[in-house]
Amino acid sequence: MSRQNAGVFYAVIMAGGSGTRLWPMSRRNRPKQSLKLFGERTLFQQAVDRLQPLFSPAEILVVTKSDLVPLLRDQSPELPAENFIVEPEGRGTAPALGLAAIHLQRRDPEAIMAVMTADHFIADAASFRKLLAGAQIAARSDYLVTFGIIPTFASSGYGYIEKGESLPLESDQPVFRVQRFVEKPDVEDAVRMAASGKFLWNSGMFTWRVKCLLDELRRQMPDFYTQLMQVEASLQDPEEYTKVIGRVWPQVAEQTIDYGVMEGARNVAVIPTQIGWIDVGSWSSLFELMPCDSLGNVLVGPHETIDTRNTLVMGNERLIATIGVENLVIVDTEDALLVCSRDDVQDVRLIVKNLKRAGQISWI
Amino acid sequence: MSRQNAGVFYAVIMAGGSGTRLWPMSRRNRPKQSLKLFGERTLFQQAVDRLQPLFSPAEILVVTKSDLVPLLRDQSPELPAENFIVEPEGRGTAPALGLAAIHLQRRDPEAIMAVMTADHFIADAASFRKLLAGAQIAARSDYLVTFGIIPTFASSGYGYIEKGESLPLESDQPVFRVQRFVEKPDVEDAVRMAASGKFLWNSGMFTWRVKCLLDELRRQMPDFYTQLMQVEASLQDPEEYTKVIGRVWPQVAEQTIDYGVMEGARNVAVIPTQIGWIDVGSWSSLFELMPCDSLGNVLVGPHETIDTRNTLVMGNERLIATIGVENLVIVDTEDALLVCSRDDVQDVRLIVKNLKRAGQISWI
Repeated sequence: MSRQNAGVFYAVIMAGGSGTRLWPMSRRNRPKQSLKLFGERTLFQQAVDRLQPLFSPAEILVVTKSDLVPLLRDQSPELPAENFIVEPEGRGTAPALGLAAIHLQRRDPEAIMAVMTADHFIADAASFRKLLAGAQIAARSDYLVTFGIIPTFASSGYGYIEKGESLPLESDQPVFRVQRFVEKPDVEDAVRMAASGKFLWNSGMFTWRVKCLLDELRRQMPDFYTQLMQVEASLQDPEEYTKVIGRVWPQVAEQTIDYGVMEGARNVAVIPTQIGWIDVGSWSSLFELMPCDSLGNVLVGPHETIDTRNTLVMGNERLIATIGVENLVIVDTEDALLVCSRDDVQDVRLIVKNLKRAGQISWI
Repeated sequence: MSRQNAGVFYAVIMAGGSGTRLWPMSRRNRPKQSLKLFGERTLFQQAVDRLQPLFSPAEILVVTKSDLVPLLRDQSPELPAENFIVEPEGRGTAPALGLAAIHLQRRDPEAIMAVMTADHFIADAASFRKLLAGAQIAARSDYLVTFGIIPTFASSGYGYIEKGESLPLESDQPVFRVQRFVEKPDVEDAVRMAASGKFLWNSGMFTWRVKCLLDELRRQMPDFYTQLMQVEASLQDPEEYTKVIGRVWPQVAEQTIDYGVMEGARNVAVIPTQIGWIDVGSWSSLFELMPCDSLGNVLVGPHETIDTRNTLVMGNERLIATIGVENLVIVDTEDALLVCSRDDVQDVRLIVKNLKRAGQISWI
């Protein structure tokens, strides 16, 4: 079945997001992936670290926005400068990955790319690398491979993937055909799906042959494909490239890889897995990630609590005292403070929106 | 009836408290009375301001602890240095007022003293001065005069005074004999008393002849009176005075003027009044004091709120964002932050206690 062509295996880290849902810790110029949320390494550095030694630094690419390049290069000096693929502005994950694909195709027409993002937390890095190695096998059989996280609770914050028949591939990981993608469900559907055993969380991580992705882009996103080929034609000449992408990219329509490609793709596979994966998308996911005390509190930084439950305190140097509160998220930074109900953490982005509208740029 | 003796009328401001219940804004070295909670003047400055022109600066005395003298003198340079009566350490309101009494007696044996504290807010200063002038008349008839605030709600945070028969004094204020003092009641009793029309809040403000206070101290607190007379005997000689009070004061038993004198005194009168008085004792009293928006919020400093109700935000320079919270008290200072349920503001003092026990001196 599988065609064991050569084809270098690359990892592509998407690191272009700003992460307004982690405000006030994340900011325009201090995005989520550049924060040290767990330990001494930033989320981006951890994303690079956990790929090695499966990938050498030369095989790790980063797609990001131009304004974030200095920050990210500074954080990972081991990556070659030419491995930073720079979008003039973010247009969603489909264009970002299309751009990475033409760069890789030029290095190796048979290249295989694994895709991940810089703002995921993965507890079990060894299993993750094993997973990627297994996915590579399925990708060589021209499948677009997704990673489906086995649900640990009925989350309504993630999209779901329904798995279909088992695929007889040589991978040492069980691989299934994807039956369908399901958008973030309501609570009732989430409970049903998490209990069914058939549904997995859509991790937003993928592995595919570059050629297969470009084929699907041509078929499903023909306008973007045309734009992408204009950029591709300029790849030989750095000056011309800068000119072309600067002209073309602002005209590219925003699109996600899920809507633009995956949902309508022909050969989509999923590998179910448990690697301690969490999308560090909001304060509530961070809450899940960190060890809590016997009252359900996660307390970082100097604190003094009385009768406090299920509360996240992300402090810094200042003392944070809480009395008689529960289900709160308290995040303290040098110039801004958030006090938010745990049930409303998704509205943090509205704060950023309101501040932007009010011209309070210094706080976003 | 009344004996219209001469006798200078003095005001004595008690300003020795630290106010741990307004932590983190109030601190050991930055007590409540030194804070600018309302406008550009501190609570202490406002206490001095509102006495004038009824009292000249020479007629206004301040009782405080030695470590607060520099701060308070700095805030009210118009008061003569010798008008600061300094306790080596605070021993409660009874010793503080006894000490003020011997100083005044030496200036004028017929002196009358009005007593107030530096941490009260009084909206109607003109009515307050009128009240004091009226109280002076009753005090000349040898009554210990208290001021009873006509309740505006069923507070369980104040002590109550039950008024008895009307006293036929020449004062232009209605004066009643005091039937009894009632300690801070439970909610049920508070509702009953506030509705009865017979009970008034005990404001902790008084007016009396110095001689009458000293008589009651001799009768009701004989041990303290003996100690006080030792101090009194040294008044002529400043050096000797410092020596004596430094030796005697640490041995003085702590006592409040209410328990030590008022509850057992022979001639106690009360003047009911409405002067917009609030004891700025805790964050909840501050909450009552300040104008709120249509959702019941009091918001000071830069803020951005979404779905926030009945919440006090005392900010400063940093932005405070709140989402989906209610009944909270949020107080932000340079080095410490409080997030407290509005129902638990009395426990703020426990935070200070815990910090002290843990040796976290910099935060108290």
